[in-house]
Amino acid sequence: MTDTPTAAVLIIGNEILSGKTQDTNVAFLGKSLAALGISLREARVVRDEPEVIAAVVNELRACHTYVFTTGGIGPTHDDLTAESIALAFGVKLVLNEDAKSRLERGMGGLNEARLKMAMVPEGASLVDNPISHAPGFRIDNVYVLAGIPNVARAMFESIVPELGRGAPILSESIDLYMRESELAAALDAIAKSHPEVEIGSYPFRRDDGNGAAIVVRGTDQATIDIVIGKVRTTFLPEN
Amino acid sequence: MTDTPTAAVLIIGNEILSGKTQDTNVAFLGKSLAALGISLREARVVRDEPEVIAAVVNELRACHTYVFTTGGIGPTHDDLTAESIALAFGVKLVLNEDAKSRLERGMGGLNEARLKMAMVPEGASLVDNPISHAPGFRIDNVYVLAGIPNVARAMFESIVPELGRGAPILSESIDLYMRESELAAALDAIAKSHPEVEIGSYPFRRDDGNGAAIVVRGTDQATIDIVIGKVRTTFLPEN
Repeated sequence: MTDTPTAAVLIIGNEILSGKTQDTNVAFLGKSLAALGISLREARVVRDEPEVIAAVVNELRACHTYVFTTGGIGPTHDDLTAESIALAFGVKLVLNEDAKSRLERGMGGLNEARLKMAMVPEGASLVDNPISHAPGFRIDNVYVLAGIPNVARAMFESIVPELGRGAPILSESIDLYMRESELAAALDAIAKSHPEVEIGSYPFRRDDGNGAAIVVRGTDQATIDIVIGKVRTTFLPEN
Repeated sequence: MTDTPTAAVLIIGNEILSGKTQDTNVAFLGKSLAALGISLREARVVRDEPEVIAAVVNELRACHTYVFTTGGIGPTHDDLTAESIALAFGVKLVLNEDAKSRLERGMGGLNEARLKMAMVPEGASLVDNPISHAPGFRIDNVYVLAGIPNVARAMFESIVPELGRGAPILSESIDLYMRESELAAALDAIAKSHPEVEIGSYPFRRDDGNGAAIVVRGTDQATIDIVIGKVRTTFLPEN
């Protein structure tokens, strides 16, 4: 699967690291990318500091097919993503006339703060924002999205058609009402005999009992079914 | 505030990046650390790959007062954190007799999988796990905690007494039912005249209207009160 595109997510914002705001964009993007066959390899959360953001963007864009950032594209003084990305690419921020007219129409007029949202790194193209008008943008393999989850999602949907794809990453899971330490040895044997899938064990505690969810992930449904079958016959022989 | 301790969080687990599991440990740790006066500077999410985990741990522990990892300390084949940390520090995994007896008592016996949870990097000390017996551990400035949120929290509480502290990071917020683009210029002026606090603007959409929460964070309550007062008189003069 060397042709599987990879991705990194960069969450930008002090509010995520202070615990004020619970991030949900990593999980959304991880799930959406897996469905497209794009493997999310890592995520980072950084503060609103342009030098830091620029350094991390440069590190990530060199390693992955795509980088998706969320946060920091609004009109206030703490929205520093556009200037950070410009810094990363060594280009100027320029006024995008299309963004300017979208903002003018959408917000019923312009002021300095709204014009700030029309400033994008030179060479960037816009990403549609059907919800709140301020567009995201793409430059090279870096997509800059809003932080607010429903806006981030709408922007992501608008760029899906232009993303390269791998084989969709599929998964099946089975709940075992056993302690992980009782199933570990046999599960390890199954995992070793099926390196072509990824097997995860995730303990749960529920009202109806404790156990572990065994998740099998891969790109071939038939193989996943075989492995799930082995898990079932190994741990639930009575069924 | 050069004496403020800093921290990084490393979330370990394919299930977070696949979107199967919503991480909540970053927000919990960020909030808890802020209350202790420890500034959470960055968070990372990586897959269950020892070489990657080791490289990131080494990068983070060189830059921050503390590193907190969550995830990957259970008994199954995909729990690779202990070996990854040993790799990072260039030490062996060794059987910890104290962990072994805790597991034996807590789980009513031992097997190979339970013994795995008693293996820690040479030189590590244990972190109590009052909930599910498998201990975390500390080596140098790296604390290794469970991934399950309530276990991670219990482990964190048990290490709070040994953490160095800075001035607690306090915050106040005020909700403005205005568009960010209408308040940005005046808020920027307030932010520029008070570099000793951090001012964030976070848009919201609620049933009773849209607006932005203005959050003022710092270590001095009197200063925070003054800045909040300025925000109030600037944007809510009628109150």
